[in-house]
Amino acid sequence: MSSIPAVTLNTGAQMPQLGLGTWKIDKTTCPEVIVTAAKAGYRHFDCACDYGNEVEVGQGIQRVIDEGIATREELWITSKLWNTYHAAEHVQPALEKTLSDLGLGYVDLYLIHFPIALKFVPFEERYPPEWVYDPKAEHPGMIAESIPIRETWEAMERLVEASLAKNIGVCNFNVALIRDLLNYASVRPSVLQVELHPLLTQEKLLRYCESEEIAVTAFSSFGAESYYALGMAQPTESLIKHDVVTNIANACGKSPGQVLLRWGVQRGTIVIPKSSSEGHLKENAAIFDFELTAEQMSQLSALNIDRRFNDPGDFCEAAFNTFFPIYD
Amino acid sequence: MSSIPAVTLNTGAQMPQLGLGTWKIDKTTCPEVIVTAAKAGYRHFDCACDYGNEVEVGQGIQRVIDEGIATREELWITSKLWNTYHAAEHVQPALEKTLSDLGLGYVDLYLIHFPIALKFVPFEERYPPEWVYDPKAEHPGMIAESIPIRETWEAMERLVEASLAKNIGVCNFNVALIRDLLNYASVRPSVLQVELHPLLTQEKLLRYCESEEIAVTAFSSFGAESYYALGMAQPTESLIKHDVVTNIANACGKSPGQVLLRWGVQRGTIVIPKSSSEGHLKENAAIFDFELTAEQMSQLSALNIDRRFNDPGDFCEAAFNTFFPIYD
Repeated sequence: MSSIPAVTLNTGAQMPQLGLGTWKIDKTTCPEVIVTAAKAGYRHFDCACDYGNEVEVGQGIQRVIDEGIATREELWITSKLWNTYHAAEHVQPALEKTLSDLGLGYVDLYLIHFPIALKFVPFEERYPPEWVYDPKAEHPGMIAESIPIRETWEAMERLVEASLAKNIGVCNFNVALIRDLLNYASVRPSVLQVELHPLLTQEKLLRYCESEEIAVTAFSSFGAESYYALGMAQPTESLIKHDVVTNIANACGKSPGQVLLRWGVQRGTIVIPKSSSEGHLKENAAIFDFELTAEQMSQLSALNIDRRFNDPGDFCEAAFNTFFPIYD
Repeated sequence: MSSIPAVTLNTGAQMPQLGLGTWKIDKTTCPEVIVTAAKAGYRHFDCACDYGNEVEVGQGIQRVIDEGIATREELWITSKLWNTYHAAEHVQPALEKTLSDLGLGYVDLYLIHFPIALKFVPFEERYPPEWVYDPKAEHPGMIAESIPIRETWEAMERLVEASLAKNIGVCNFNVALIRDLLNYASVRPSVLQVELHPLLTQEKLLRYCESEEIAVTAFSSFGAESYYALGMAQPTESLIKHDVVTNIANACGKSPGQVLLRWGVQRGTIVIPKSSSEGHLKENAAIFDFELTAEQMSQLSALNIDRRFNDPGDFCEAAFNTFFPIYD
């Protein structure tokens, strides 16, 4: 594989432009997947409390370091603050739990996972606590907590002071929320992580982040792929099988997935595809040895229909009996 | 005309469901239009510093009261805090200037006009100051000011304590901003004013507001109509001439405009059409003597394509050399 370039954050940190997304990587194979990825050149791992596998990711990272594949300093580990830990007093304990699970002394990047504050669930009661407050209730639902984002952000800033997080940022925030946050932040967010693919190009959001020197990580670069099994996407919405994508893939001698990832990195975003097989891991990493033409980039971006697969305003009602829009 | 129903706000206040929008009412005819509207049954006038005609609206209101058409208590006057007055120390002076212009001791509703804080322009220097900081500059642009929305909202709350505003609210906020605001507000917003018409139905936003007991005022109920002259809409985007609208109008024996307003009130929103002629004023008010069927309501709502005509993310760049998205 060709080497993975880095994006320079507003703190000066160098964040690898390709990472491994760990959402839905099965616990049993997770340590092995991390090691295989590291051997294939991956240095950036995108984790979260909510993914439920940070212990196993940590086991993999430990092996990567022990086996001399990479040093801690060469790795980039991102994790995310879950919705139930937004109160000032829970932010540092939440990161400490994540660090303990990962077996690390710091993360390179800690992100607020959603602009959604839910009622606290003690660590010992249920971890990760996921979305509903009482899963055993007859109609389990989410319980919102009245915590301004500023309170959470100021607690995030203290994690930087405490050297527990080298960089901080947010996920799933829109321009209006970022703008408001920038008006009170002492430590500016370094990264925004949001859903991005050719059906959801979010061009104004990207341009805004660029103007504010906030790097952007794209999740769900393949579009519908992660959402079929969750009932959140239809097979007809596939990007991997979309004519425009497959035609460009054929023209480039690359796979549709590589084209979608390349479109992401060529826009300047950081991509974090998930894979569990060595073949796919290598395939996803082989995106720095070719270039899409301006015309191909435009054809892909022209597919935009503002289709968001990961929208709490939809899935929280379907899955958790709770109407909880955040993008409307 | 039939009488105008009221919407009960979360403060208990009764807000007339139809008002006269005063954006773009010409100063020279404005006092007369206000009087004509009041004679036609209008009691609710939707004003703003930025509309540049509050002195003339005030002259009309004075005549309405002097001529015994309505008492102050029977009127509902809304005004809006302009973007240059978001700093805590400018909020009350801005309302006092509006009250002085309107010739009133209080407004019934005071709204933050946009979630956009711009650099202060002294009243005596330019009023209303509009969008650009220095109109005489070679490339006049907007200058943002770092003021968190919380600072502005807390100053709005003090206006209620001071009895200068009976109710307070916001315009052009999305769900995420409202949710964050509700997490710190001591006085909850009573009203959200946003663009709403069948091309931009914003169903989740409306449902969210209903769940939070925030009434919603729809602006631009006719869609593209206000935006052709500003170059912000194409003739092909007309709702007034749209087949679905004209067919329903014919079926109801009403005008397309009346159908669009009726769709608004039947969704529970408050509508504020602008008109300067007695004929149109009366026509716009004659929307409480007929009802759209569920099927007609659905046909209209099915026109939704999330088309926002009034988007600072578009017009600020075109008109003021400044990229300033708020909805993305």
